[in-house]
Amino acid sequence: MDDFFESTDAVRNANPLSYAREFFYSSPFKLERGGNLSEIRVVYETYGELNERRDNAVLVCHAISGDSHVASHDDADNAGWWEIMVGSGKPIDTDKYFVICPNFLGGCRGTTGPDSINPATDRRYGLDFPEITIGDIVEVDCLLIDSLGIKRLLAVIGGSLGGVVTLEWATRFPDRVISAIPLATAAHMTSQALAFDIVARNAIQSDPNYFCGRYFERGVVPASGLAIARMLGHITYLSREAMMKKFDPTRNQARKIDTSFETKFSVGSYLAYQGGKFVERFDANSYVVLTTAIDNFDLGSTAPELRKSLKPSMCRWLILSFTTDWLFPSFLSREIVDALLAMDKRVSYCDIPSECGHDGFLLPDEFEIYGEMIRSFLANVSFELSSGSAPQVERPDRIDHEQILDLIPRGAKVLDLGCGKGGLLARLRQCGACRVQGIEIKEKYVLRCIERGLDVVQADLNAGLSAFSDHQFDFVVLSKTLQTVSDVEFVLDEMLRVGVRGIVSFPNLGFLEHRRRLMEEGRAPKLELETSREWYNTSDVRFLTLADFEDFCNKKGINVHHCIAIDTKQKKQIDQNPNENADLVILVISK
Amino acid sequence: MDDFFESTDAVRNANPLSYAREFFYSSPFKLERGGNLSEIRVVYETYGELNERRDNAVLVCHAISGDSHVASHDDADNAGWWEIMVGSGKPIDTDKYFVICPNFLGGCRGTTGPDSINPATDRRYGLDFPEITIGDIVEVDCLLIDSLGIKRLLAVIGGSLGGVVTLEWATRFPDRVISAIPLATAAHMTSQALAFDIVARNAIQSDPNYFCGRYFERGVVPASGLAIARMLGHITYLSREAMMKKFDPTRNQARKIDTSFETKFSVGSYLAYQGGKFVERFDANSYVVLTTAIDNFDLGSTAPELRKSLKPSMCRWLILSFTTDWLFPSFLSREIVDALLAMDKRVSYCDIPSECGHDGFLLPDEFEIYGEMIRSFLANVSFELSSGSAPQVERPDRIDHEQILDLIPRGAKVLDLGCGKGGLLARLRQCGACRVQGIEIKEKYVLRCIERGLDVVQADLNAGLSAFSDHQFDFVVLSKTLQTVSDVEFVLDEMLRVGVRGIVSFPNLGFLEHRRRLMEEGRAPKLELETSREWYNTSDVRFLTLADFEDFCNKKGINVHHCIAIDTKQKKQIDQNPNENADLVILVISK
Repeated sequence: MDDFFESTDAVRNANPLSYAREFFYSSPFKLERGGNLSEIRVVYETYGELNERRDNAVLVCHAISGDSHVASHDDADNAGWWEIMVGSGKPIDTDKYFVICPNFLGGCRGTTGPDSINPATDRRYGLDFPEITIGDIVEVDCLLIDSLGIKRLLAVIGGSLGGVVTLEWATRFPDRVISAIPLATAAHMTSQALAFDIVARNAIQSDPNYFCGRYFERGVVPASGLAIARMLGHITYLSREAMMKKFDPTRNQARKIDTSFETKFSVGSYLAYQGGKFVERFDANSYVVLTTAIDNFDLGSTAPELRKSLKPSMCRWLILSFTTDWLFPSFLSREIVDALLAMDKRVSYCDIPSECGHDGFLLPDEFEIYGEMIRSFLANVSFELSSGSAPQVERPDRIDHEQILDLIPRGAKVLDLGCGKGGLLARLRQCGACRVQGIEIKEKYVLRCIERGLDVVQADLNAGLSAFSDHQFDFVVLSKTLQTVSDVEFVLDEMLRVGVRGIVSFPNLGFLEHRRRLMEEGRAPKLELETSREWYNTSDVRFLTLADFEDFCNKKGINVHHCIAIDTKQKKQIDQNPNENADLVILVISK
Repeated sequence: MDDFFESTDAVRNANPLSYAREFFYSSPFKLERGGNLSEIRVVYETYGELNERRDNAVLVCHAISGDSHVASHDDADNAGWWEIMVGSGKPIDTDKYFVICPNFLGGCRGTTGPDSINPATDRRYGLDFPEITIGDIVEVDCLLIDSLGIKRLLAVIGGSLGGVVTLEWATRFPDRVISAIPLATAAHMTSQALAFDIVARNAIQSDPNYFCGRYFERGVVPASGLAIARMLGHITYLSREAMMKKFDPTRNQARKIDTSFETKFSVGSYLAYQGGKFVERFDANSYVVLTTAIDNFDLGSTAPELRKSLKPSMCRWLILSFTTDWLFPSFLSREIVDALLAMDKRVSYCDIPSECGHDGFLLPDEFEIYGEMIRSFLANVSFELSSGSAPQVERPDRIDHEQILDLIPRGAKVLDLGCGKGGLLARLRQCGACRVQGIEIKEKYVLRCIERGLDVVQADLNAGLSAFSDHQFDFVVLSKTLQTVSDVEFVLDEMLRVGVRGIVSFPNLGFLEHRRRLMEEGRAPKLELETSREWYNTSDVRFLTLADFEDFCNKKGINVHHCIAIDTKQKKQIDQNPNENADLVILVISK
């Protein structure tokens, strides 16, 4: 088969279940919405070895059409749906971790679902299968974890539906989850995403072969309804950019496939093909049951609701979204991040720049960045767990950082705005600050911070700090960043709202060498002394002297508690006439 | 009925056709794709009076579910689908213009379509209705225009499908279209938009009541297929933001409606309602025929293809897109704009900031800006047509503008980057420049330029000038804009690629007053002398002296042909030591 029809479709490489194991729960199981199941079967696969302390287990949660076969077990085995992520030497390293991947309750890949035989009737459940919730899925998987003798999971990880399940684990069983990594997911669906699921279910349920879910008894399947649902799904998993790349160059070149659907246009034949393939391997009732469960999942859409739902969680978080994901758009991940930040939970976040849309977390395109983030995060969580301390010893490397360190007492809570590679935060952690959180816009720096075991959230300072409450931090630091900020007043306002004290450092245009350059040479001063940047390519967009900043503080009612002036070339602190003699100034301020 | 179910649905207020007129074409009509129709009926409505010169006719083109009833004819009449746009004193002013709105070929609101009786068989066409193109729709409407004795249309205007028809008019009958206003449209659908249409047609055609399009003979309609198609359509017409606003606050509060579809969630009941309403008034075969016509419409997806397709057009263009329209996203309008710019066609463009998505052009939310743009544009086109000249007399108001005017010979082609309200361009036009084009980012300024009768395209300079070919203009002006540009090298490179000469003006940091302020007062110079902006809120992000710029030109191999230095306070030109004595400099440069 032609490359053209490739997709992230889990079952393209599906396992004939040769490595699958089965967990059987023979007691009646009460469901959240009132129904119950008299017995439950869970099909799952495992990789690697559980260590003696039983604290290296990673639970991998699949997406809607996924299954237990997350990766191959050996060279002869078929590839799994997350082959890039799970395996020896891979980010979820099976040499280190014991990986468990169950098929979900309600699915159709071995675990009890609507196509299973109902022991009460000896017929398939069909639409008699009771309504289930994401909570039920997690409860069932927890029985499995119990059966494996595991008290705490080192990590729960998953994307899309798997991300929702991860969120549920972290809040339902907070003391059993050490870290949570939800990818491309949300605490609630947008109305747009809901709408697509609704149309998909309408297509299935109005297929005349649906027979109110009893199609098995008639020996038919609602093939066109399910295929149409899957076509819709495929559109939402891809970004517009990805579709353009894949289909635009051959727009009118339909492929020949055996189908009753329209095959006009290349994208038409692709959709017809994917719709047809899905019908061969997925059960329509499972599709209805699982999409309804995710649609009903709702940790809240307002900040207070979200905080309430996420409050019980005790894990460290790594949350990743993908910029072109429009089914679970990035702002929904940010809402979760913001709620966690507001409650001082330990969270790192990155919006991975990607053209791949919702499927981004399954694809190799941006793996170099998101794969490494997951690898480092897991490694650090594992290290902290075993050693009880932060992973690295950091050495002093910037004079202004060391000065800032001196200003911050042990035990302080510190937020670093524009934290870069995390140098200051790492030093602060080492010197005894009780909680350090970074905000940084460049994803490469975010990765570096995660590698260092720091908590860092990717965000644009210019958008404000609305996640944080008033005076949430003892100190908020804006180190050599003020001069790059476009909305200075807003950023400083936010900083002084969130921090009891603010620490600002910036290059001082009043430095005599700068003055001389303009006065005598008639050239614009170059503030970035260390670099070769010129007026036309510097990232500095604000030019101010220490005196300008003091005027500003006066005008805005900002208190200046402390001012440290430095001549960075001579590496000395300046006492006399700092507006002339210092090229870098550090101020402690408050409002 | 509750507000909740309101939509832009044209037929909510549909006219009982009391004002509709009919044009009957009794000769055989050959279709572009080979079929033919033995006779054609066109239902249309008109508003206002055709003037004596027969040059005030405006053709309004409807969207897919629209019809001829664009507006009410009197107080007793039902509102039309574009009531805000068409009427006495409205942007398409029926006191001034003769407005014609036909129902399209292939539709089901009176004009010949698949639900019409085929004279050859005395039965409805159904699927015997031949495949039609957008070209066929325009050819038929042209017969109508002929029958009304109109040679040239003052304007063709429409959004979505109506925009596509507008594009076809401008290229198929270039000598009959004086101006074209395509809104929220594209020269070709994205693969994503195609995919939605394909899924919609699959839903219709796999409905068991479709009977290969012969459902009328069986006395049924493919109601669920058509309803599902319509639900999908509704999702794509709304932005995610608009859906969140409408449905999120009452997410779980389903409304009670009589339907066989799922009504879970507020958005579910909305979709079920809209799907059901549509079935009552629209014909499934028309939906298939019209979506297929728009899907096949393709003026090209590469710049050379688009230029070739648009080359014949001779009209003035006003092209508008809406920022949250994801069905016909803004970049597709920009592709058309860029192709027209490359060929020196007269075009104005704005990407209207809107939360309304594709439906933006039908809604009052941003009407104040897009309605006024259409009003002004039409008024200016009409004025130019009758007077043969530009509409306004402009008075000199800026000393730097007058200096720049002196540098540009009569007959020159000029592009103004960051043209603001168009002051310089208006003066240039008045002083005899042969073609002036503006680029401006702020939509309020774009509107002001359009009011002045100028051609202006909304764009961000920092994204480059890729629309234009090398040396397309005699002069490219960057007046008091350089200091606000983030990527100076790129913008100057582009400027000097596109223009034989560039004219740059900027505030000179070397001005003695600025030097003194830094040297003596220790304060950052304030370059915006006229304003009260400070270092923390100025839009200036580049600080340079005349000498810095000359160094830059030297380094980059840019020739400086001319330098005019001005002391703006004393309103005089400076000859001696300009880097000290001028606060504003103007340079003519080339590469």
